[in-house]
Amino acid sequence: MPPFLSGRFWRAVFTRTRGERLWAGHRRASGGPGCRWDALAGADVLRAEPDRFGGISVHLERFRALDRLDAASFQKVLQAAIQQWRSEGRIAVWLHIPILQSQYIAPAASLGFCFHHAESDSSTLTLWLGEGPSRLPGYATHQVGVAGAVFDENTRKILVVQDRNKLKNMWKFPGGLSEPGEDIGDTAVREVFEETGIKSEFRSLLSIRQQHTNPGAFGKSDMYIICRLKPYSFTINFCQRECLRCEWMDLHDLVKTENTTPITSRVARLLLYGYREGFDKIDFTVEELPAVYTGLFYKLYHKELPENYRTMIGMD
Amino acid sequence: MPPFLSGRFWRAVFTRTRGERLWAGHRRASGGPGCRWDALAGADVLRAEPDRFGGISVHLERFRALDRLDAASFQKVLQAAIQQWRSEGRIAVWLHIPILQSQYIAPAASLGFCFHHAESDSSTLTLWLGEGPSRLPGYATHQVGVAGAVFDENTRKILVVQDRNKLKNMWKFPGGLSEPGEDIGDTAVREVFEETGIKSEFRSLLSIRQQHTNPGAFGKSDMYIICRLKPYSFTINFCQRECLRCEWMDLHDLVKTENTTPITSRVARLLLYGYREGFDKIDFTVEELPAVYTGLFYKLYHKELPENYRTMIGMD
Repeated sequence: MPPFLSGRFWRAVFTRTRGERLWAGHRRASGGPGCRWDALAGADVLRAEPDRFGGISVHLERFRALDRLDAASFQKVLQAAIQQWRSEGRIAVWLHIPILQSQYIAPAASLGFCFHHAESDSSTLTLWLGEGPSRLPGYATHQVGVAGAVFDENTRKILVVQDRNKLKNMWKFPGGLSEPGEDIGDTAVREVFEETGIKSEFRSLLSIRQQHTNPGAFGKSDMYIICRLKPYSFTINFCQRECLRCEWMDLHDLVKTENTTPITSRVARLLLYGYREGFDKIDFTVEELPAVYTGLFYKLYHKELPENYRTMIGMD
Repeated sequence: MPPFLSGRFWRAVFTRTRGERLWAGHRRASGGPGCRWDALAGADVLRAEPDRFGGISVHLERFRALDRLDAASFQKVLQAAIQQWRSEGRIAVWLHIPILQSQYIAPAASLGFCFHHAESDSSTLTLWLGEGPSRLPGYATHQVGVAGAVFDENTRKILVVQDRNKLKNMWKFPGGLSEPGEDIGDTAVREVFEETGIKSEFRSLLSIRQQHTNPGAFGKSDMYIICRLKPYSFTINFCQRECLRCEWMDLHDLVKTENTTPITSRVARLLLYGYREGFDKIDFTVEELPAVYTGLFYKLYHKELPENYRTMIGMD
């Protein structure tokens, strides 16, 4: 299937059915009488781009003359296009709509489109044309929260806070949501500093919690990760808006207190185990590796491999 | 601040400025002349609900008479409301819009609203009214993919596939994206079965990879988790649409081959380490615990704690 075939189709639809009126305003801009066809074939025309999975993408922001089209006319044009795409064997349509062109969302929804996602100033709608239930990939399903268990091996003290906004004042580790694009360890270090004023560095990943249909995550899932951090400043200067209390507590006291959450208590025990018998017993350490296809790098966390298993020298 | 104060404000705005015309159609339905005021005060009226963080939520689907309001009028009403909310000291507005009422999105955007998220048949827009940059929580930032490393301890064989849709045919573990609300281990077991026909059960979490601005994740982040699974069926019946090849490979061969991804090779070495020296060396095991605030349960993954650290009996 040659690229932009469906772009040609859209041009044909516009020209055949409503082009005269719809494109009248555009004609003027493109150089006077006789230029309408050039304008229609130009870069301003809507591009429907096929993808390698048999779907097609339409970006309304590339279709600059669209603002001359009312919602009802758009619906007719889209309906004709869908018919054409079906006949071409397309399995899905991705419709990208800038927020200021949102008047075209409801007409698309009337034809079966629904939101795939929206963010900031644009939305993406999809329509599945293939057989059976949709096989389109979903959007992001999880928010990621990270807490830092800042443990000072020299004093056996651990940094704990009580949230200002919670109903029960339980001791827990400082933490919060990852910013978009932020690494797990960076979130832990940032949140610890913002909440408590303590500077620290990432050591390892200790625990992962997965929770679903979370009210605080707009009904999505929540991944909550606890990291082990090593402090390099010790004077607490906690955020009054977020925290009620903040202190360095003896690790034994945190293990024994009932005034804490089950996950904090569990991680306190893990830390005590690591403190006494070696942190390699409890840590997932991190390494940066290259991605095969994208040329990007990623962070990989797992139990540290002994040197001979990394190199496999003499391991036959 | 009493609840629904701003609901009263909206009613006042409608009544004062456009109520006569806007609500004319509605009047008839609610019992003839003289009933307009009752209708305005009734359950059909838009409810602006304050939250405990100083924000306010407006659900357009609860405002059934809204379809009589054109986009320009909606913008005027919303503008007046924002002014009122500012004067009340509100710090944020959450505007929930059903997909078929999307004609109100662009007018809201003109007043500074932008998409927080959208899914299926509704969108949510936000406007920050507080001081400084927005402190509103973001939406889901990660998709979660899970792969299953299905290892048969009796034969030292590991289940591997080659993707049909990748440019390089490298051996890797079968896997795919988590469905909304699906637990990590369940995704691994489901994807392994769908891709290879092999039945298995979850044993542990071995590795976590975090990657950002992922093209396959619509520019969001990707969390990719590899689990150790134990097979209980062995006859391969692989999905022709997804896989090019599928086989049980000796773990040593997977460790040594160059025809694999860095992450697969790394996890193969981890498995060899665990196979020889005990899987407790490499596993994060799972447990279900109760959440403190929501009454829900969650899955918690970490290095298994020795019994005496779990109970703390005799551990002073």
